[in-house]
Amino acid sequence: MAVYTEVPDSELEAFLGAYDLGRVMSCKGIAEGVENSNFLLRTGQGAFILTLYEKRVKREDLPFFLGLMDHLAARGIHCPTPIKRRDGETLSELCGRPAAIISFLEGLWPRRPTARHCQLLGAALARMHFAGADFPLRRPNNLSVEGWHPLFQACAGRADSVKAGLAEEVARELAAVSDSWPGDLATGVIHADLFPDNVFFLGDRLSGIIDFYFACNDSLAYDLGVCLNAWCFEPDHSFNATKARALIGAYRRQRYMPPEEIAALPLLARGSALRFLLTRLYDWLHHPDGAFVKPKDPLEYLHKLRFHAKVRDMAGYGLG
Amino acid sequence: MAVYTEVPDSELEAFLGAYDLGRVMSCKGIAEGVENSNFLLRTGQGAFILTLYEKRVKREDLPFFLGLMDHLAARGIHCPTPIKRRDGETLSELCGRPAAIISFLEGLWPRRPTARHCQLLGAALARMHFAGADFPLRRPNNLSVEGWHPLFQACAGRADSVKAGLAEEVARELAAVSDSWPGDLATGVIHADLFPDNVFFLGDRLSGIIDFYFACNDSLAYDLGVCLNAWCFEPDHSFNATKARALIGAYRRQRYMPPEEIAALPLLARGSALRFLLTRLYDWLHHPDGAFVKPKDPLEYLHKLRFHAKVRDMAGYGLG
Repeated sequence: MAVYTEVPDSELEAFLGAYDLGRVMSCKGIAEGVENSNFLLRTGQGAFILTLYEKRVKREDLPFFLGLMDHLAARGIHCPTPIKRRDGETLSELCGRPAAIISFLEGLWPRRPTARHCQLLGAALARMHFAGADFPLRRPNNLSVEGWHPLFQACAGRADSVKAGLAEEVARELAAVSDSWPGDLATGVIHADLFPDNVFFLGDRLSGIIDFYFACNDSLAYDLGVCLNAWCFEPDHSFNATKARALIGAYRRQRYMPPEEIAALPLLARGSALRFLLTRLYDWLHHPDGAFVKPKDPLEYLHKLRFHAKVRDMAGYGLG
Repeated sequence: MAVYTEVPDSELEAFLGAYDLGRVMSCKGIAEGVENSNFLLRTGQGAFILTLYEKRVKREDLPFFLGLMDHLAARGIHCPTPIKRRDGETLSELCGRPAAIISFLEGLWPRRPTARHCQLLGAALARMHFAGADFPLRRPNNLSVEGWHPLFQACAGRADSVKAGLAEEVARELAAVSDSWPGDLATGVIHADLFPDNVFFLGDRLSGIIDFYFACNDSLAYDLGVCLNAWCFEPDHSFNATKARALIGAYRRQRYMPPEEIAALPLLARGSALRFLLTRLYDWLHHPDGAFVKPKDPLEYLHKLRFHAKVRDMAGYGLG
């Protein structure tokens, strides 16, 4: 949770003057999202999310993120639509930060995801991959293999303070994953951070996918690996094959996965576990004293990494 | 800011089953209020605030707080109305905590209060004092003089770690204020915590007063002393007589202040400054390492305390 920036009412009103949204009725900082300052904004026109982009989001990436949401929403994906100002722009500035208003999506994110949630997610993920196919902008995945090495370098010296032997284990995994990382799978726009708090449900339907601020171009199947990690493990770190079957099965019913993607999935999921282990480890070791964002436990992802490292094929995920 | 409790969607839906509010459409933790967990809830019936009362609010005080809001709202005060369940109750339970749903109030709290805000506040404060006159429940002010001594005792040993000489100065002020604290002023229900983030404005009107969780029975003029501290000082700690004139003048146009209240105001404001100095000092010294609520600077109130200690009469506040 995080609201980093206080928005004075006078500045908010001036900012909204560039939009056709009517008068501001309320604006409340919301305690979701750790990268940006998010506000639930109510105006004469309805409910919106106002986002101020804090320093972890690069300004030059915003046209990709906002353009992608606009592109996907226009193709029927339930994701936020950036609201245009009267001059046609979606990217604006407030309190010295890049800022945008996006549409508000109804729904609740599942605190305890079920196999049904995983099934709905798998289908939506495949549809999102199709919808993103003709998005013209490109953004590399800075948090893929090449990005993991410098992250590890910045943590290696102190990793063992988190857990004895961690530095050596991560170094070994990093070498193994890097050596065999696939470079020839089908690529496209991926979400890359599709955790349960980024997916809303309303009754028995998936009502929204949010937070595209890690979206990038990469292997489509890598997105499925991220979801395996984020949705198919229980709080005690055990793998739930029922959820994995529901997720992967629903994805494959929407989008054909060629044999090489299926063969690569354990490695992709292992790499994804390594990615979240490394970013969490970095945040754990580098978060400033007195910071008001609680860092997430990196070791959760060590368990997941070890699990995927032992999976040889889809049978290891409970699939035939 | 604070959301302390995560509410699983299944528990939320079960909880809402006792109300006639329609289906839940969204529920977002909001980053306002430090004592409770607050959520902006949208259902088929509109927008509401869902509050889970965390440990700082005593369960036995909740009928007073919820009853007061209901009472004031019924008398036309712009404050939240507790929503009744189908069984007529307003106090409920969610995630093992007392919980209530209250109506959502539109408006923005002023990050930079103006004299006009102070004027609107003064008038609303007087109207609230009238509206509370026939509220039947009673709750003592635990944070008045008798409560300040144990607070000070819990801080005295380490107060000088915050500022050299602080323990002695606070002890002296506490003795002086206690010795002359007035016991014979007109009493009633006071808000007791009417800071700018608890007052909403919409255009040129005051649209809401929220957060009645310090409300109690005490001298009405003490509430005005709290507002003087909370609204009439600038960020550089200087007193703004224009705002004080607007606040007190508007209050007095609505409610006659007898001479003894006027004479006591500097002492009441000084006591109020001492109250916030002590509670902030306590939180500063006792907040756990790694707590995610940033304690407020106690020394802001040392400046205000010193200011009021030198005021002899209303001329010191810029009034004739």
